[in-house]
Amino acid sequence: MTRQRIVIIGAGFGGLAATRAFAGAAVDVTLIDRRNHHLFQPLLYQVATAGLSPADIAAPIRAIVRDQANVRVLLGTVTGVDRIRRTVKLAQGGEIPYDRLIVASGARHSYFGRDDWAQHAPGLKSISDATAVRHRVLLALERAETEEDETRRQALLTFVVIGGGPTGVEMAGAIAELARRSVSKDFRSITPHCSRVYLIEGGPRLLAGFPEDLSSKARGAIEQLGVTVMTGHRVEGVAEDHVLVGGECLPAHTIVWAAGVQASPAAKWLGTSSDRAGRVEVNDDLTILGDDRVFVIGDTAAVSNLQGGTLPGIAPVAKQQGRHVARQILSGRSEPFRYRNWGNLATIGRHRAVIDMGRLRLSGPLAWLLWCTAHIFFLVGFRNRFIVGASWLWNYFTFQRGARLITSDALTIQQGDRI
Amino acid sequence: MTRQRIVIIGAGFGGLAATRAFAGAAVDVTLIDRRNHHLFQPLLYQVATAGLSPADIAAPIRAIVRDQANVRVLLGTVTGVDRIRRTVKLAQGGEIPYDRLIVASGARHSYFGRDDWAQHAPGLKSISDATAVRHRVLLALERAETEEDETRRQALLTFVVIGGGPTGVEMAGAIAELARRSVSKDFRSITPHCSRVYLIEGGPRLLAGFPEDLSSKARGAIEQLGVTVMTGHRVEGVAEDHVLVGGECLPAHTIVWAAGVQASPAAKWLGTSSDRAGRVEVNDDLTILGDDRVFVIGDTAAVSNLQGGTLPGIAPVAKQQGRHVARQILSGRSEPFRYRNWGNLATIGRHRAVIDMGRLRLSGPLAWLLWCTAHIFFLVGFRNRFIVGASWLWNYFTFQRGARLITSDALTIQQGDRI
Repeated sequence: MTRQRIVIIGAGFGGLAATRAFAGAAVDVTLIDRRNHHLFQPLLYQVATAGLSPADIAAPIRAIVRDQANVRVLLGTVTGVDRIRRTVKLAQGGEIPYDRLIVASGARHSYFGRDDWAQHAPGLKSISDATAVRHRVLLALERAETEEDETRRQALLTFVVIGGGPTGVEMAGAIAELARRSVSKDFRSITPHCSRVYLIEGGPRLLAGFPEDLSSKARGAIEQLGVTVMTGHRVEGVAEDHVLVGGECLPAHTIVWAAGVQASPAAKWLGTSSDRAGRVEVNDDLTILGDDRVFVIGDTAAVSNLQGGTLPGIAPVAKQQGRHVARQILSGRSEPFRYRNWGNLATIGRHRAVIDMGRLRLSGPLAWLLWCTAHIFFLVGFRNRFIVGASWLWNYFTFQRGARLITSDALTIQQGDRI
Repeated sequence: MTRQRIVIIGAGFGGLAATRAFAGAAVDVTLIDRRNHHLFQPLLYQVATAGLSPADIAAPIRAIVRDQANVRVLLGTVTGVDRIRRTVKLAQGGEIPYDRLIVASGARHSYFGRDDWAQHAPGLKSISDATAVRHRVLLALERAETEEDETRRQALLTFVVIGGGPTGVEMAGAIAELARRSVSKDFRSITPHCSRVYLIEGGPRLLAGFPEDLSSKARGAIEQLGVTVMTGHRVEGVAEDHVLVGGECLPAHTIVWAAGVQASPAAKWLGTSSDRAGRVEVNDDLTILGDDRVFVIGDTAAVSNLQGGTLPGIAPVAKQQGRHVARQILSGRSEPFRYRNWGNLATIGRHRAVIDMGRLRLSGPLAWLLWCTAHIFFLVGFRNRFIVGASWLWNYFTFQRGARLITSDALTIQQGDRI
């Protein structure tokens, strides 16, 4: 019997969990990704706010699967899938044949059709996104230091985060700490205590996926860090130096997008149907409609939860789905996927978090400690766990931000720009 | 009496040493740099070869001088100096007045008039240089993995370092280890043991600044790592996929420039004379000819040594000069500068180095250990020392390269390019 050829698109949490579940099995796995590294996205906001270095939260895919002899890693950009001939097409040329295909290509930000906002309000999905945000935040402080006009200085010291989900809350808290506390002794002309951080959410409350009491605890905690929370406010415009919200103009030079996500174009590759957020509609067993050789998991799939909504785009969902699909392929039997919810976490600043574990709900420093432990534990690879642990301890005790580097030439030597 | 206004251009080793020497003095120091961080350049090659992260070898200038109340830090690009009105002009507009000016603006690579080579053979002076080289090396391995044509694959697995000084030797050794050992288990189609690393030097031997016996020891050590050393060979051409050397074409996709440096345009700013490498001619006391208010130090100055040559562009020289100039300004007395040579170090791969301390000459593992200790000791800031120490131990025992990330979008999604 010839070995089944499994192709997995995407080495995020879902794709990697599936890959690992094939360890030792008599199959050939090809793992395709656009990048050479797996990214621990939940900590990306720490790279954006100079708490961690990119290499602390990313690991080369080849290194992760090195000991799994049945895996081949391909750096490539997928452009389509031929479901008749059963091949995956790459931008670099070449087609990769499959017997089973697992699509775990994730999601990117969505500007709700206003793609022109992207240049002014970068999102947070890749390492280059995170370093771009870091450059903006740090450069705004530098420019404020030499700006003589009071109005312009205040705009430079105003930071706006759009979107009140976990990423938005984490970003706003971390920016507030960076701008108001960590760098407070570093400047002479400005006092970073004058920095203003706004967190704008269209819905009625922050962290909509959490119970209401944790939402309001999170709001209290983040307001204590000096963040101005605006719920029930829709953003109507984003420009280089301001945000339009509720008919008002809010002057701000640093704007971060944490509002919407859009699934990768997997539905288009596969020629199948998707929901409004671009997520592929799947059967109970995560196969796509009418083709039991193709599975879609993670942020790319729209999977219903028991409450009638869809499962959130978080790492535990993707990982469980990856393992579930691998089990089905190895057993040859279709089984419906059930998500086991071990809890939902979000952190607020340096030593607060909220945790929802169903009946058990935690907030405050204990929750933060649990959050830290969980994140360090789940980081791929020993080196990363070790270095991240050390960096955090260091930040915690000293209030420093070790990775406060502006490395891009384009940003530091803009001619004619007042910096 | 009004306080003297000291302006220092450049926060490298020289500028920072001068700044620190003014601590507690009744002067006002303005420290200007194009970037927001001080860079520990001697370890830049480790960032280029994925051994360290950028933040490990760089520290924000503001954080370094935070406790020195008489220092103001300015992020800005200098475009000229008006020595009559005694001001420094910035690209961002504005002029900074000085009573004494210390120019420590460093050097950049020089392609000996062949600036078109720069795009194919990046040098190693800034963090973006280092990450660019890292991307090229890692991407070449990735492309080799999927390349089916044997000739092209060999070109992808060929790495050429041009210039046999300390940086070139360190780069060649680190690339050889990265390509031949660290990643050897990570690829399926290629064996990175087939990688070829060339080190090309125009002069008769490597490490021309070292005694001959250490030169030949270094050559032996680096050849043992699998590097092909070509001394007495001039590079005649550099293109995207090959190097022309000694009339022969050497196909190679990754080319690193470690050959020439050119001082920053300080001589032009100051309207004074410079040598062939662009370094400003200075008096014994490091003032420029005919103006005792302006000092030039570090890589930007041409200072004679006792042997009739000039002092090398290394950190100890710059630091001693920075302190010397500060002492002169504070005492108001001119004194000739004397360089105290504590020793000269270069490392070869993972556990070898050569050290020249005058009568004492060391090579091999003991020298390497000394080199490590010295570098960790001199790294600015405790966090960096700690993290670098941990990363090195980790690399040493596991042969991993923690920072093997290709983060640039431009490189990973080039359309039509076989990757």
